[in-house]
Amino acid sequence: MCVTRVVITIFVHRNGKTETATSLDRLWLNPASGVVVWVDLAAPSIPESLVLKDTFAFHPLSVEDAMSPTQFPKAEAYDGYLYVILHGIHFRAAEHRFATHDVDFFIGPTYLVTVHDGDSRSIVDLREHAARNSKIVGDGPVALFHHIVDAMVDHYRPEAESLEDGIDELEDRVFDKPTPELVRQILTQKRDVSSLRRIITPQRDVVARLARRDFVDISTEMSFRFRDVYDHLVRIADDAIMFQDRITGILDAYLSNVNNRLNEVMKVLTIVSTIFLPLMLLTGLYGMNVPLPRLPGGDGAQFWWLMAIGGAIVLGMLVAFRRKKWI
Amino acid sequence: MCVTRVVITIFVHRNGKTETATSLDRLWLNPASGVVVWVDLAAPSIPESLVLKDTFAFHPLSVEDAMSPTQFPKAEAYDGYLYVILHGIHFRAAEHRFATHDVDFFIGPTYLVTVHDGDSRSIVDLREHAARNSKIVGDGPVALFHHIVDAMVDHYRPEAESLEDGIDELEDRVFDKPTPELVRQILTQKRDVSSLRRIITPQRDVVARLARRDFVDISTEMSFRFRDVYDHLVRIADDAIMFQDRITGILDAYLSNVNNRLNEVMKVLTIVSTIFLPLMLLTGLYGMNVPLPRLPGGDGAQFWWLMAIGGAIVLGMLVAFRRKKWI
Amino acid sequence: MCVTRVVITIFVHRNGKTETATSLDRLWLNPASGVVVWVDLAAPSIPESLVLKDTFAFHPLSVEDAMSPTQFPKAEAYDGYLYVILHGIHFRAAEHRFATHDVDFFIGPTYLVTVHDGDSRSIVDLREHAARNSKIVGDGPVALFHHIVDAMVDHYRPEAESLEDGIDELEDRVFDKPTPELVRQILTQKRDVSSLRRIITPQRDVVARLARRDFVDISTEMSFRFRDVYDHLVRIADDAIMFQDRITGILDAYLSNVNNRLNEVMKVLTIVSTIFLPLMLLTGLYGMNVPLPRLPGGDGAQFWWLMAIGGAIVLGMLVAFRRKKWI
Amino acid sequence: MCVTRVVITIFVHRNGKTETATSLDRLWLNPASGVVVWVDLAAPSIPESLVLKDTFAFHPLSVEDAMSPTQFPKAEAYDGYLYVILHGIHFRAAEHRFATHDVDFFIGPTYLVTVHDGDSRSIVDLREHAARNSKIVGDGPVALFHHIVDAMVDHYRPEAESLEDGIDELEDRVFDKPTPELVRQILTQKRDVSSLRRIITPQRDVVARLARRDFVDISTEMSFRFRDVYDHLVRIADDAIMFQDRITGILDAYLSNVNNRLNEVMKVLTIVSTIFLPLMLLTGLYGMNVPLPRLPGGDGAQFWWLMAIGGAIVLGMLVAFRRKKWI
Amino acid sequence: MCVTRVVITIFVHRNGKTETATSLDRLWLNPASGVVVWVDLAAPSIPESLVLKDTFAFHPLSVEDAMSPTQFPKAEAYDGYLYVILHGIHFRAAEHRFATHDVDFFIGPTYLVTVHDGDSRSIVDLREHAARNSKIVGDGPVALFHHIVDAMVDHYRPEAESLEDGIDELEDRVFDKPTPELVRQILTQKRDVSSLRRIITPQRDVVARLARRDFVDISTEMSFRFRDVYDHLVRIADDAIMFQDRITGILDAYLSNVNNRLNEVMKVLTIVSTIFLPLMLLTGLYGMNVPLPRLPGGDGAQFWWLMAIGGAIVLGMLVAFRRKKWI
Repeated sequence: MCVTRVVITIFVHRNGKTETATSLDRLWLNPASGVVVWVDLAAPSIPESLVLKDTFAFHPLSVEDAMSPTQFPKAEAYDGYLYVILHGIHFRAAEHRFATHDVDFFIGPTYLVTVHDGDSRSIVDLREHAARNSKIVGDGPVALFHHIVDAMVDHYRPEAESLEDGIDELEDRVFDKPTPELVRQILTQKRDVSSLRRIITPQRDVVARLARRDFVDISTEMSFRFRDVYDHLVRIADDAIMFQDRITGILDAYLSNVNNRLNEVMKVLTIVSTIFLPLMLLTGLYGMNVPLPRLPGGDGAQFWWLMAIGGAIVLGMLVAFRRKKWI
Repeated sequence: MCVTRVVITIFVHRNGKTETATSLDRLWLNPASGVVVWVDLAAPSIPESLVLKDTFAFHPLSVEDAMSPTQFPKAEAYDGYLYVILHGIHFRAAEHRFATHDVDFFIGPTYLVTVHDGDSRSIVDLREHAARNSKIVGDGPVALFHHIVDAMVDHYRPEAESLEDGIDELEDRVFDKPTPELVRQILTQKRDVSSLRRIITPQRDVVARLARRDFVDISTEMSFRFRDVYDHLVRIADDAIMFQDRITGILDAYLSNVNNRLNEVMKVLTIVSTIFLPLMLLTGLYGMNVPLPRLPGGDGAQFWWLMAIGGAIVLGMLVAFRRKKWI
Repeated sequence: MCVTRVVITIFVHRNGKTETATSLDRLWLNPASGVVVWVDLAAPSIPESLVLKDTFAFHPLSVEDAMSPTQFPKAEAYDGYLYVILHGIHFRAAEHRFATHDVDFFIGPTYLVTVHDGDSRSIVDLREHAARNSKIVGDGPVALFHHIVDAMVDHYRPEAESLEDGIDELEDRVFDKPTPELVRQILTQKRDVSSLRRIITPQRDVVARLARRDFVDISTEMSFRFRDVYDHLVRIADDAIMFQDRITGILDAYLSNVNNRLNEVMKVLTIVSTIFLPLMLLTGLYGMNVPLPRLPGGDGAQFWWLMAIGGAIVLGMLVAFRRKKWI
Repeated sequence: MCVTRVVITIFVHRNGKTETATSLDRLWLNPASGVVVWVDLAAPSIPESLVLKDTFAFHPLSVEDAMSPTQFPKAEAYDGYLYVILHGIHFRAAEHRFATHDVDFFIGPTYLVTVHDGDSRSIVDLREHAARNSKIVGDGPVALFHHIVDAMVDHYRPEAESLEDGIDELEDRVFDKPTPELVRQILTQKRDVSSLRRIITPQRDVVARLARRDFVDISTEMSFRFRDVYDHLVRIADDAIMFQDRITGILDAYLSNVNNRLNEVMKVLTIVSTIFLPLMLLTGLYGMNVPLPRLPGGDGAQFWWLMAIGGAIVLGMLVAFRRKKWI
Repeated sequence: MCVTRVVITIFVHRNGKTETATSLDRLWLNPASGVVVWVDLAAPSIPESLVLKDTFAFHPLSVEDAMSPTQFPKAEAYDGYLYVILHGIHFRAAEHRFATHDVDFFIGPTYLVTVHDGDSRSIVDLREHAARNSKIVGDGPVALFHHIVDAMVDHYRPEAESLEDGIDELEDRVFDKPTPELVRQILTQKRDVSSLRRIITPQRDVVARLARRDFVDISTEMSFRFRDVYDHLVRIADDAIMFQDRITGILDAYLSNVNNRLNEVMKVLTIVSTIFLPLMLLTGLYGMNVPLPRLPGGDGAQFWWLMAIGGAIVLGMLVAFRRKKWI
C-alpha cells in the first residue's frame, strides 16, 4: 500500500526505535506485534481516506465523521478502538472571532490515527519531535493521544489571557474616556467570551469522560493525566464565566457613566438658565417703553444700581445651588 | 383490505425488491416473513385510521395521539412496537413565526408506520426515492425511521441560519441607523429564537433517548446514528442560546445608543443656551432705557466694543466646553 | 349509616350497572366483592367527614389533610390506598388573580373517595354523567380518578389561553399607544403568569409520579394515560415560561419607547432653542440704545436686511440639523 | 447528680404520667425501662453542659456544636442517637431584620434532649403543656421532637405574611405616591426576603431528610408527619421566591415611573419654550431701534396686529402639540 | 539523607513524644512502626523535592502538581496515600484582590507531607505548636491534616467579614452621598465577591468529598470533623451569593438615585423657565417700539400695573406646579 507523503505521515516504533515509514504493514496492527504506530492524515481527500476503511476497518460512521469538516466534540467506544473528536482553537484576528478545527483520533491497542485539516499546531509540532525522541511514540497510543490533547489545551490558555487583557483595557477605558463606540467593543468582547465558552464546554465534557475512566482503553494511570487536562479546561471555562460577569459590569458602568454625564450637562444648563433668565428679565423690565421707577442716586447710578440688583440675584442663586450641592 | 391511494402509501420490500402495494397483507407483519413494510398515512381521516387499530392492533392511546393534530414530542415503548412523535419545522414567513407539524412513527419488527398531515417534506421526498432505491426500505424499519428523522433534523439547520442572518442584520443596523421601530424587530426576533428553542428542546430529548439505547428495538449500530442526529440538535439548541445572548446584547446596544444620542442632543442645547444667554443679557443691558455707561472710543466704537465683549464671552465658553471635552 | 345527600354522593357499580346509594355498605370495600364505589364529599363538615375515619379507616394524617382547606399537591401511598391532592383552577376576574381549590382523592382497590369544597367543575360534571353512563364508574377507581384529573387539567388550558390573549393585547398596545398605566397592567399580567406557574409546577410533579409508576396501584395501562395528562401540564408550564419572557420583552419595549419619546421631546426643544436664541440675540443687538452700524440700503431696507440675516441663520441651523439626521 | 432548675428542665414519663424531675436517673436511658425523658437545657453554660457528655455520653463533636451559638442546620446520625440542629426565627423590628436562634435536638430511643438559648417560644410553650398533658411526652421522643419542630415552623408563617403585607403596601405606594426614599424601602424589603429564603432553605433540606426516612430512628408513621412540616417549609420557600419576583417588579415600576415623570416634566418645558420663544422673537423684532415695517391700520392697531400674529403662532403650536399627542 | 533545615521541617512522634528530626528514616513509613511523621516543605526547589519521589515514592503526577505553583483544588486517591490540594487565602490590599496560595497534602498511613510556598499562616502557626504539644502530631496524619485545613478555613471568615463591612459602607454611601466614583467602587467590590466565590466553591467541593467518606483513609470519626469544615465553607459561599445580591441592589439604588436627581434638576429648570419666559415676554411687549396700549392710572402706575400682571402670572404658575406636586 502506497501513500502520498505530504498527506499521510507514518511513525513506527519497534525495538525501541521510532522511524517514519512510507507504507503501512497490516501486521503492525496485531496487538501481539509489540509495535506502536502513529498514522497522521493531514487534510486527506477521499482516496487518501480509504486507508481508514480498508487497512484499519474502522466503522463507516466514524470514518464519515472524521472526513466531514465540522463535528461536535465527542468520544465514542467502537469495537476495538476509541474514537474521539476534539477542537483546536485559534483566534482569527482579521474576523475578530475564534475559529476551531476538528482533530479526530482513532485510538487502538497498537496504533493512533489522527485526522485533521493540516493546521493543527499541536500535531505539526509533535511530528517534528516524534522522529527524534523515540519515547514519544514508544509510550503507547494512549500516552501519545494524551500528549496531543495536552498540547491542544495548552493553546487555549493564551487565547483566554488575551481576552482578559482586552477586558482589563475596556475596564480602564470605560472610566477614563468612555466613547459611544465603546459599546460596540463591549458587545464584540462579550461575543468572543461567549464563543470561547461554547467551544470549551463540550471539550471539557469529552475530556471529563476520558478522565472518569468511562473507557476501558484508558488506564488508571492515563486517566490521572487526563484529569489534569480536565482541570485546565475547567479553569478556563470558569474564567470565561467570570469574564462574562466583568463585561456585564463594564456595560453597567458605561451606562451609569452616560447617565452621570447627562446629569452633569443638565446641571450646567439649569444653572446657566436659572442665573441668566432673572437677569434678562431685569434688563427687559428697564427696556420697557414706559416710565420706569427711578432708583436712588443720579442718572449715572441707575445703571450700577441695576447691576447691583443683578449681582445680588446671581449671588442668591449661587448660594441656593451650593446648598443643593450642585456646585 | 382496500385503501384510497392518496392517503395511504404502502411499500413492501421482499426478495431484495421494494414495491408499492395497494393493500396490506397481515402475513407481512410476522417477524418470520422476512418482509419490510412501510405504511405512510398522509392526513388520514377517521375511517382511514382504522388500519392502525384493526390491522396493526396498536394501543388505542397511541392511535388517539397519532390522530390528534398537536402532541408533545415523545418516545414510548408499547408491547411489540415503539411509538415516537417528532415535529417537523417550517417558518411561516407571512405570520413571521415557526410552525411545526407532528410526524408519528410506529416502529415494529417488520414495519414502519408514519402518520403526518401530508406536509412533511422529509417523508414526501423519501416516498419518491423509496420506490427507486430498494435499499431505503430494505435496510429495515429502524434504519428507515432514522432516515426520515435525519432528513427532518436537516430541515432545522437552514431555519436556524436564516435566524442568524436576521440577527447579523439587526446588529449592523443598531449601530448604523437605529430607529424606534428597531425595538419591535428585536422583540420579534427574540420571540422567534425562543420559539425555536422551545421546539428544539423536546425533540432533542426524544432523540437523546433513542441514542442512549433506552429502547431495545434500537440496535447499538442504529443508536450511533441517532447520536449523530442528537449532536445536530444539540448544536442548534446551543446556537439558539447564543442567539438569545446576542439579541439581549443588541437591545442593550440600542438602549445605550438612545441614551448617547439624548446626551448629544442635550449637549447641543446646553452649549447653545450657555453661549447665547450671556450674549442676550449683554444686549438686554444696553437696551435698557437708563443712562448707560459709556465705553471708550467714539459713538461708532460703542457697538464694536460690545461685540468684542460678546466675542470674549463666546471664546471663554468655548474654552470651558473644550476643557470639559464636550466639543 | 345515614348521610345527608347534599354533601355525600355515593355511586355503586355492580352487575354492570351504576346506581346512587344513600348509605355505604362496608362489604363493598372488600376487593373480592367485584363492586366499584365512588364516594364524593362536597364541602364536608366535621361530622360528615367521620365516614373517612370510621368506614374507610383512612390514616388520621390524610383525613386531616383532606379536611384542611389549602394543602400542597402531593401523592402518598398509605397502607391499602393512595392519597392524592391536586388543585383545580379558576380565574377570579374580580380580584384579577387565579384561585385554586383543593381536590383530595383516596384511591383504593374498589373505591374512589373525592373530597372538595363543592366548586370543582370537573367533579360536578362527572357526577351528572356517572349515573347515566355506567362505564364511568365501572372502569374502576383508577380510571375514574384519571377521568377527573384529566377534566381538571383540561380546565387549565383556557385560563392559559386567556392569559396569552392578554399578553398579545399588551404587546399591541405597547407599540400603538403606550400610556403610563400600561406598566401597572404589565406588572399584574406578570404576577398572573408567575402565579399560574406556581400552581402548575407542583401539579405537574404529582402527575409525573403517577405517570412514572411510582405507585403499584397505577397499572402500566393507566400510567400511559397519566403520561398524557403530564404532557398537557408540561406544555402549559412551558407556555408560562414563554409568557414570562414575552412580558419581560414588553416591559423592555415600553421603557425603550419612553426613552425614545423623551429623546424626541428633547430634540424639539433643542431645535426650537437653537433656532430662536440666535435670532433673539440679533433682535437684542439692534434693540440696544447705542449707535448701531448701518446696513446697506435705505432706512426701510434695514429691517429687511436683518430679516435676511435671521433667515440665513435659520437656514444654516436647518442644514446642520439635517446633517445630524435630527429632522 | 444535681442541676440548677432554671437551666435544666427534666420531664419523665412513666406509668402513663409525666412529671418533672430535679435529677436524671441513668436507668431511664435504658430502652427496656419503658420510660420517656425530655431534658431541656436553656442557655446552658459549660458546667451545665457536662450532663451531655457525662450522663448521655454524646459524641464530643455534637456536644461542641450544641454549645456553640450559631451552627448551620443539619441532621446527623450518631451511634445510638440522632443529632439535629434547626433554627427558630423571629423578626427583630428594631434592626429590621430576621434573627434566628439555634435549637439542638438529641433524639435517642427513650429520650429527647433539647439545647437552645432560652428564647425558643416553641419550647417554652411546650414546657408549660408537657406537665399538664401527659400524652405530649408519652408519645415518645420522636413525636415530641416533631411537636417542637412543627411549632417552630408554624412561627415562620406569620413572619412570611408580614413580609407579604409590606410588599402589598410597597406596590400600592409605588403607583400612588412614589418618593425617592421608596427605593431604600424596596432594597430593605428585598434583603429581608432574601434573608428569609436563606434561613428557610437549609431547614427545608434537613426536614426533607427527616421526611425521606434517611434515618432509621424515624418511623414511617412519623415520616408522614415530617412530610407535612416539609410541605409547609416548601410553601414558604416558594412564597419567598415569588416575593423576590414581585419586589423586582416594584423596582421596575418605580424606575419606569421616574422616567415617565421626567418625560412629563420635559414635555412641559418644551411646550413652554416652544410657545414663548417665537413670541419673544416677535417682541424683540419690534423692539429693534431700526425703522420698522408698518402693519395695516392706525398707530393703535399696530400693537393689536402684533398680538394677533402672536396668537396665531400660539394656536399653530398648540395644534402641532395636539397632533403629536403631547397635550 | 540530609536536608536543609529552612525548607524541610520534620516532626516525628514516637513513644508519646514529638521531636523534630533533621533526616528522614525510611523505617518510619512502615505502618507497623507506630510512628507518626509530619514533613513540611516550604517553597522547595527541585533538589529538595526529590524526597517526595525518592523517599516516599509518590506518583510522579502528584509530585509534579505539588511542585507547580497554581493548581486547581482537588482530592485524589493514589496507591497508599491520599493527595489533596487546597488554597489558603489572603487579601492583597495593595492590588485590592484576593490572592491564594496552594497547599498540597500527601496523607499516608503513618505520615503527612505538606508542600506550600512558605506563606501559609496555618502551617507556620502549627509548626510552632507541634513541637510543644505532642498530641498535635500524635493524633495521626488525618487529624493533623484536618487541623491544618480547619485553620485554613478559619482564615476565610475574616476576609468575608471585611467584604461585608465594605458592602455595608457602600450601602450607606449610596443613599447619603452618591458620587460618580461610587460606581467604580461598586464594581471593584463586585469583582472581589465574585472572586471569593470562585475561590470558595472548589475548596467546598473537595472538603465535601472528604466529609462524604469518598476516601477509605478518612474514618467516620474524622469525616464528622470535615463535615464541620464543610459547613463553614457552605456558609461563606452562601454569604458570597447574598453579597452579590446586595451589590446588585446597591447598583440599582445608585442608578435610581441618579435618575431621581436628574428629575429634580429638570424640574428646577422647567419651573424657572416656565416662570421667567412669560414675564420676559411681557417686558418684551412693552419694550416694542410701537404705540403701546395704556394701562389704567397715571404714567407712574404703568410700571406697577405691569408688575402686578407679572406677579399674577408667577402666582398662577406656582399654583399649577403645586397641583402637579412639583413643589
